[in-house]
Parts: sequence; C-alpha cells; structure tokens
Amino acid sequence: MIAEIARQVLPAMSPGAILSDVGSVKRQIVADIAPHVPAGVCFIGGHPIAGTEHSGFEHALADLFENRICVLTPNADVDSRALDRLTSFWRQLGSRVIAMDVNAHDRIFAAISHLPHMVAFALVNAIVDMEGFDAGILQYSAGGFRDFTRIAASDPIMWRDIAMMNAPNILEAIGYMERSLATLRSAIQGNGADSIEEFFRTSSEARRSI
Amino acid sequence: MIAEIARQVLPAMSPGAILSDVGSVKRQIVADIAPHVPAGVCFIGGHPIAGTEHSGFEHALADLFENRICVLTPNADVDSRALDRLTSFWRQLGSRVIAMDVNAHDRIFAAISHLPHMVAFALVNAIVDMEGFDAGILQYSAGGFRDFTRIAASDPIMWRDIAMMNAPNILEAIGYMERSLATLRSAIQGNGADSIEEFFRTSSEARRSI
Repeated sequence: MIAEIARQVLPAMSPGAILSDVGSVKRQIVADIAPHVPAGVCFIGGHPIAGTEHSGFEHALADLFENRICVLTPNADVDSRALDRLTSFWRQLGSRVIAMDVNAHDRIFAAISHLPHMVAFALVNAIVDMEGFDAGILQYSAGGFRDFTRIAASDPIMWRDIAMMNAPNILEAIGYMERSLATLRSAIQGNGADSIEEFFRTSSEARRSI
Repeated sequence: MIAEIARQVLPAMSPGAILSDVGSVKRQIVADIAPHVPAGVCFIGGHPIAGTEHSGFEHALADLFENRICVLTPNADVDSRALDRLTSFWRQLGSRVIAMDVNAHDRIFAAISHLPHMVAFALVNAIVDMEGFDAGILQYSAGGFRDFTRIAASDPIMWRDIAMMNAPNILEAIGYMERSLATLRSAIQGNGADSIEEFFRTSSEARRSI
C-alpha cells in the first residue's frame, strides 16, 4: 500500500527532492520502493513512534510527534544532506530522531510493538471464545483490562498489513510468547509457588525498569 | 492468607457481627473460612472491582470504590439483614453491588481479570527472553506497550496467591489464550490475509462494544 503510493508519486519528483514514509515495518517497504527511485531523488524510510488506536484525519493531534522518537532507516550510501534535512524536519515537529538498520528496526518493533498488539487481539478473542461467554461479563472488567485491550481496538486492515509485512519477526516473537505462557501454565499446573512467584517477579521488575 | 487472618479474627467476633473480605478469588477463601464462623456471626465473601497496580496503605485513594462494582458472594442461607447491611456499606462508598455465586465469580474473573494479568506478565517475560534482547530497546516502546504492561508491575506475591487459589479456572483461560495465539500464528504462517484481517476485526469489534 505504502510502496504502491510511493511508486505513483516518484515519477513526479524533481532531482533534490526527498521521499520518506511513516510505515511501521521497514525492510519490505524500503525494498519495494528503492528500485523505483529516480536519479537525484533520495528515499529514506521512516517510522515515527507515535499514534493512538484511532486511524484517519479526523483523529489528527497537533502535538502527536512531540517528545516522541522517530526512527529513520537510511541506506549506507544515503545522501548525508538529505538525511540532515529529514532529521531537521522531524526535530522541528518535536521528535528525537534515531537512525537504525531496517532489519534491526523490524525485529525490535516486532517485540515491543507488534507482539503486544497480536497478544491484545488474541486475548480479546480468547475471552470471546470461552464456552458460555456472555458479553455482559465485560461490564465487570476494571481499568487494567480496559487499558490492556485498548490497543485491540486498532485498525484491522493496518494490522493485517503489518502482520504480513513483518511476518518472520512477528512469528519469532509469537513463539517466545507461546513458550512464556507455557512456562507459566506448567508452574501453575505443578502448584509451584516459588516458580509462579519468580515468573511474576521477573516480569514485574523488568516492567518497572522502563 | 486472607482465610488465615479471618480464622484469627473470628473467635473475637460478637453475635450479630458481619465478616467480609476483599479477595480476588472467592470459592477457596469462602470454603476455608466458612467452617470457622461462630454461631450468630455472618460471613459474606466480597470482591470490590477496584485497585491499581500498586499495593499497600501508601497507595490508598479516597475515591477508590466510587462508581465501581463490588461483587458479594452470599450463601443460599445467608442472613438477609446482614446482606442488606453489607450492601448498604458498599453503596455508601459509591459502589454498585452485585451478588454472584462463588464458582461463577471465579470463572468470570479468571477470564476478564486473571487471564489479562497472566498474559501481561508472560508478555514482558517473552520480550526479556528474546535472543539478543537489550533493555535499551524498551526506550522505543510507545504508549500502547506501556499501558498494556502496566499491570505486569503488579505485586508478584498477591498474583502468586491468586494463580494458585484459582488455578483450575486460570488454566482453562490460559488454554483459550494458547489456542487463540495458535490460530493467529497459523493465519500469519499461511499468509492468509483474509484470516488475519478477520481475526483482528472480531477482536476489534468485541473490544469496541465494551
């Protein structure tokens, strides 16, 4: 989708122009766009770490990028003046700019962004699937559950595209999640008070360190 | 823990007194306390659906119970005047009181409260376990991940006790979660755009309906 739009825009771009994008996955988008970039035009992939569970112009926020990180994924042979200009653009919006390799980007965000979304979607479906489930029970849910599943209200189409474009890294991350859940299940099945507590303590301490 | 304290308190209670608790699991707590309740004293299990990821007096909030649900789990032979008094107590704190069977309570809260906590703890551990994990990557996490894992900072001891006391229902719920994640993994592995979108759409719509 992003690459398709880029291919429509690129032929109209003048030498010296810079093209960037804001997609959540970088390797495939960059690979799909790069061959179509005309001489003199510079393409640099980008991913501002900002947004809500809402999509579309009607949810625009003037300060969306303030104090947020924006990741750029320049190639090794990037035009350094173009990179400076794009960096300056994001800084003027209030963002902190970080350069990263496309593969490193996709693996890191599979872990800290895509996996939590996959898990939130799967959690809501697990509860809805439960035998005897009645939507009325959701009235009993407290703040924790609502915060937790807020991101499960995100756009299904956008997340379908992310899941498919970053499939290898997301599948790796889901594998870690499946093993983590299995470890917890075994500890509870085995009535292992110490193992259960240790599992929760590790998690609690890691989370507090953020 | 709660039952142990109750057994210490009960011998000092006068006829006409009411004992209740605020534990997150009800069947086992009620079963452990019931045999020790002296004649004339009424015990009614309770579970106010309120709280944060913080524990202890230092995190007390004056309006903690306002506009929250409080579940009570009276036995069939409960003294109706005692139930009225306890109901009135919670209403004066601003809560909406709902009576529920202990087993129904424990299964519902395994789904909408205990499972989300298990999943949050497991998610943080999954990310920490990832090969090549560097705590520095958590700086890139956006609001979604932080909201999502906020509850993973909850007290490990309290959650160990909940996991052990409500083990059968929590294991059932973890089973649903494992199957839900496996369904999603298969859809991504099979590159099934429609299946992936459908999975996310079901979840997104269920979540929005809360």
